Amino acid sequence: MTLTPPHRLLMGPGPISADPRVLRAMSAALVGQFDPVMTGYMNATQALYRQVFRTANEATVLVDGTARAAIEAAVVSLVEPGDRVLVPVFGRFGHLLVEIARRAGADVATVEAPWGQVVDPARVEEAVRAHRPKLVAVVQGDTSTTMCQPLAEIGEICARHDVLLYVDATASVVGNDLRTDDWGLDVVTVGLQKCLGGPSGSAPTTVSDRARAVIDDRKHVEQGLRTDDDEPTGTVIGSNYLDLAQILDYWGPRRLNHHTEATSMLYAAYECARIVLEDGLDATIERHRVAGAAMLAGVQGLGLTVFGDVAHKMHNVVAVEVPDAVVADAVRAAMLDDFAIEIGTSFGPLHGRVWRIGTMGYNARKDAVLTTLAALEHVLRAHGAAVPTGGGVAAALEVYAA
Amino acid sequence: MTLTPPHRLLMGPGPISADPRVLRAMSAALVGQFDPVMTGYMNATQALYRQVFRTANEATVLVDGTARAAIEAAVVSLVEPGDRVLVPVFGRFGHLLVEIARRAGADVATVEAPWGQVVDPARVEEAVRAHRPKLVAVVQGDTSTTMCQPLAEIGEICARHDVLLYVDATASVVGNDLRTDDWGLDVVTVGLQKCLGGPSGSAPTTVSDRARAVIDDRKHVEQGLRTDDDEPTGTVIGSNYLDLAQILDYWGPRRLNHHTEATSMLYAAYECARIVLEDGLDATIERHRVAGAAMLAGVQGLGLTVFGDVAHKMHNVVAVEVPDAVVADAVRAAMLDDFAIEIGTSFGPLHGRVWRIGTMGYNARKDAVLTTLAALEHVLRAHGAAVPTGGGVAAALEVYAA
Repeated sequence: MTLTPPHRLLMGPGPISADPRVLRAMSAALVGQFDPVMTGYMNATQALYRQVFRTANEATVLVDGTARAAIEAAVVSLVEPGDRVLVPVFGRFGHLLVEIARRAGADVATVEAPWGQVVDPARVEEAVRAHRPKLVAVVQGDTSTTMCQPLAEIGEICARHDVLLYVDATASVVGNDLRTDDWGLDVVTVGLQKCLGGPSGSAPTTVSDRARAVIDDRKHVEQGLRTDDDEPTGTVIGSNYLDLAQILDYWGPRRLNHHTEATSMLYAAYECARIVLEDGLDATIERHRVAGAAMLAGVQGLGLTVFGDVAHKMHNVVAVEVPDAVVADAVRAAMLDDFAIEIGTSFGPLHGRVWRIGTMGYNARKDAVLTTLAALEHVLRAHGAAVPTGGGVAAALEVYAA
Repeated sequence: MTLTPPHRLLMGPGPISADPRVLRAMSAALVGQFDPVMTGYMNATQALYRQVFRTANEATVLVDGTARAAIEAAVVSLVEPGDRVLVPVFGRFGHLLVEIARRAGADVATVEAPWGQVVDPARVEEAVRAHRPKLVAVVQGDTSTTMCQPLAEIGEICARHDVLLYVDATASVVGNDLRTDDWGLDVVTVGLQKCLGGPSGSAPTTVSDRARAVIDDRKHVEQGLRTDDDEPTGTVIGSNYLDLAQILDYWGPRRLNHHTEATSMLYAAYECARIVLEDGLDATIERHRVAGAAMLAGVQGLGLTVFGDVAHKMHNVVAVEVPDAVVADAVRAAMLDDFAIEIGTSFGPLHGRVWRIGTMGYNARKDAVLTTLAALEHVLRAHGAAVPTGGGVAAALEVYAA
C-alpha cells in the first residue's frame, strides 16, 4: 500500500497541516553527518532559531525528537535528583512538567490556577520564597486550556531570586510574543508542529549562558570519545540521549559525536524558521493574532460560548463550549468525514465539554478560518443546534476587514 | 538561503544516501494525530516492521528519535536502579550500551573482545553465571569495528538462565540476518539511516511479551490521563519521553496520548520497510552480502589490508587499513572534494588507522561499489600509494559475475 494521505484541513490544537514548502524541503538529498555542507546547515539553522527565540544564546540547537523530548532534555539536564523545582500549573502541560521533573528526581512544588486562567506572578514569587527552587518550569501556551501565561514578570522574579527559568513554548512560539533574552528565560524549547508549520519530530531549544554553565558542570563525555581534558565533574545527567551537555558539544565547534543528526527533520526545521523570518517574526505573530481574533469572533458569531479568560487566550487556539443540543464527538466526526476538517477534542476536566479550534502556522489563513466556520455552521445545524445563518463567516470577515 | 544539498554518494558507515522513494514519501501531507487514517498508517507500519524484525511481537513500534533514542528507551524501560546488566563489548557501541545502562542506574559488568573480533558466547555464559544479570545488552553489528556478533547462541544462554536479552541492530538490520523470535531476542531496536535506506530520526523497536510484562509492571500513566484502573505499580521508569510502557499504550488499542507522532518520519519508516519487503527480506540481505563481498574484494584488489576478523564482518561495512604512504584524512577529503564520495573515518583506537567503507541500503548497488573503487584508486595513487591499475574494479566485478 502506498501512503496517499487524504486531504485534511487540520484546525485542531496541533499538529496542523504543514506548509508545503516544509514538506518539499524534507525531500532534499542527505549529506554526511560531518560533511562541511552539513555542519554549515547546522550553523545556519542555529542562526535562524536565535532570531525565532529572540536571543543571542550561542547554545541554540535542535533536539532530535518531538517537543516532549526537548522538554525532558531541558529538565533532566538542569535538575539533579533532590533539586527543588517549582511548576506553575494551569493545564495539562503543566502537569507534564511536574511529571518529567519528578522522574528526574526533583522535589516539585506547584502553584495551580483553575483551568481557563493563568497564574498570578505574585503567587509564583510567594512560592519561590517558600520552596526556594533551583528551577521554575512553566508552559507559555497550554493548548489544553488555550491560556497564554505572561512571562516577563516571572522572568524578573527568577532573576531577583537567582532561580533558573525554563519555558515550554511549543504551542506558542511565533504565534504569540516570546522574548527569551528580554524576559530572562534561561531555557526555552519548542516543536515544529504548531505555529512553525512543520511536522512533529524536531525540537528547537535555546540555552542561556548561566543555564549552560549549570549543564556543562555535569558534562560526562562518553567512553571512547573522552580525552584527559574531559574529567567528569558534577552529577551525571540521567539521560544520554537527552543530555544537553553532549548535544551542545555535537552542535558546537568540537563537533563531538553523539546521535546522528536527523537530517531531513533539520531541513524541515530550517525551512519552518525561514518562512517565518522571510515574512518577519512580528508579521507572523500579527497574522496569528488576526486569524485568532477572526476565529474567536466567528465562533461567537455562531452563538457559541468561549471557554476561559479571553484576555489571556493564546492567539492560535480557541476553546469553544459544546452546546447542549449536540454531542461533541459526533460534531467532530462530521466535520472530518464531510468537510475533511479536523477540530480538536479536549483533555481531563474539559473532555466532551469544549472543542479546541486552532489557527496555526500554514493554517492561520483567512480561507482556512472562513472554511472552518462555514462548515461548523452547517454541521451544528444538522446536529440540532440553533445557529445564526452566516453569523460565523460574517463576524470573521469583519475582523479581517478592520 | 535555500538548502540545496550538493550531490553526495555516501559510502561511509552511515548515514547513507536515502532512497529517493523514502525522500518523496516524506513530502506527503500530514493528517491528524488520532485521525483514523493516521492510526491506520501506524498499524500498517507495525505490520511491516514485524516482518523486518521476523517477529510476531504485537509490541512493535517506532520510537521518535534517532537510533540512540530507542536504545535508551529499551534500557531505561527494562532496567531499574540497582539491576545488574551484562554487556558484551566489542567496539564503541558496546561502550555506549554500558554508558546508557549506567545512567539508568544499573550495576554493569562487561565481557570485552579486542576490537576486530566478536565475543565468544561461552564467555557470555560464564559472565551470566558470575554476574547474574537481569539483562544482557549487546550490539549486533558494531560499525566501529565492522564486526557482526552471532546472537543465536547468546539467545539460548539468556533463555536458559532466564535473563532478558536486548539487541541494538541499528547498523545490521536488513543487511545481515536478524531473527528476533527464532533467536529469543526480547527487545530489538534499529534506525533508518543504515541498510534501511532512510534518514536518521525514527527508531523501529520490537518488544517480546516477556519483556513487555516487565515494562508494563512499571507503567505510570500521566496525571490528567490517569484513570482508577491505572494504579501505579513498580518503580517508575526514569524517562517520560523514552518510557516504552507509555509509548506502547500510544501505539496500542488504548491510543493513550503521549508525544505527537513524528508523522513525516513515520512515512519515511513505512517506505523504508516497504522497499525492503517488496524486494524481499532475504533478497535484501543477499544484495548487501554481494555488495559487501564486492567491496571487500575490491579493496583487497587495490592491495589494501582489511582490518578485523573477516569471517565475522558485517556485510555492509568494511574497515580498510590506511597504507603508510598516505594520510587518512587527506584521502577522505579528496574523495569528497573531487568525487563527492564520502567514506568514513574511525573512532577510538582505530582513529587515523582505518577507513570504513559502507555498502548500505540504497547504496548497496554495483554502480556505487565500482564508482567508489575507481575513485579510491585514483585518489590513493595521487596521494603516493602504489595501487594496481584497475585492480579494485576488476575484483569487484568478478564477485558480481559469480
